[in-house]
Formats: sequence, C-alpha cells, structure tokens
Amino acid sequence: MHQLYYHRDSKRGVKGTYDWLVSEMEELGEALKTNEKRALEDEFADVIAWLASLANITSIDLEKAALIKYDNKCPKCRHSPCQCTF
Amino acid sequence: MHQLYYHRDSKRGVKGTYDWLVSEMEELGEALKTNEKRALEDEFADVIAWLASLANITSIDLEKAALIKYDNKCPKCRHSPCQCTF
Repeated sequence: MHQLYYHRDSKRGVKGTYDWLVSEMEELGEALKTNEKRALEDEFADVIAWLASLANITSIDLEKAALIKYDNKCPKCRHSPCQCTF
Repeated sequence: MHQLYYHRDSKRGVKGTYDWLVSEMEELGEALKTNEKRALEDEFADVIAWLASLANITSIDLEKAALIKYDNKCPKCRHSPCQCTF
C-alpha cells in the first residue's frame, strides 16, 4: 500500500483520506445488506486498503498496532476467548 | 480474532457489529485530530479488530480479499505506483 499509493495519499492529506475511508465504510454497509460474497470481499478489501493508506500517512504501523493491543488475549479481560461480561 | 471473539460477535450479529465498527471509526477520527501516536495506534488497532470481527461473522477472509484486489498493482490502472489520473 505504501509503495502503491503513498505519493497520492500524502498529497490528499489526513482529513481527505479519512473522509474517503468513511465513504468506503458506508459502501461496506450497503454490501452487507446484499450478502453477496463477491461484493463483500470487494468492499472489505477497499476498507482495509484505505485504512492502510491512512495509517501510512500518519506514520502508524497498522500490523504492529493491532498485534500490540490484540496479542491473542482480550485487551480488557486478558482471557482467550474473551470473557468480558458487558 | 476468530478464537477470541467469534462466540460474542456471532451473538451480536452483523448489524450490531457494523454499528460498533462505525463508532470505532469515529473514535479514530477524533484521535487523528490529536495526533498522539499512542492514541492513534490504539484506535487503528480497534478499527482493524472490529473489521476482522465483521469479516469473521460474514465468512469473509479479510487477508485473502485484500490480497486478491490489491496484488501489488492498483486495481484500476494496474500500475505500481498507481498512475490513475482522477
């Protein structure tokens, strides 16, 4: 994602990229209503691509951030599977 | 994510999990305004975790979906880096 899009994403800026991510999330919401596997795969791919773009231009390592917080235990109750009662 | 949360996510359902993902996206939007690295990592981790939860309960392989569409070339112009002119 960095190689593919960084030059474009950094020009668009954080606010513009976040807004685009939000619109991709809305498209995912629409695809969820259809339950068509191909459309779902397509929209999930777009959301994660835009999320990665946003992480790139804010200098966040998305994979590292996820692995630090979700290290095979729930970050709240520290159990796996999660046993939170909320 | 599947092992940690599937039992909980599948009970919450697709609509409830999507709504939660949207609220995590809003929290990410707030964190972007602060530009604090720790807060950003935390919110990026939450968004990707909820996205993975949503993929699990809709039987989508998130990684596979992303790799099919974004195979190191832009899905629109087929170049790397992307050369789309829009």
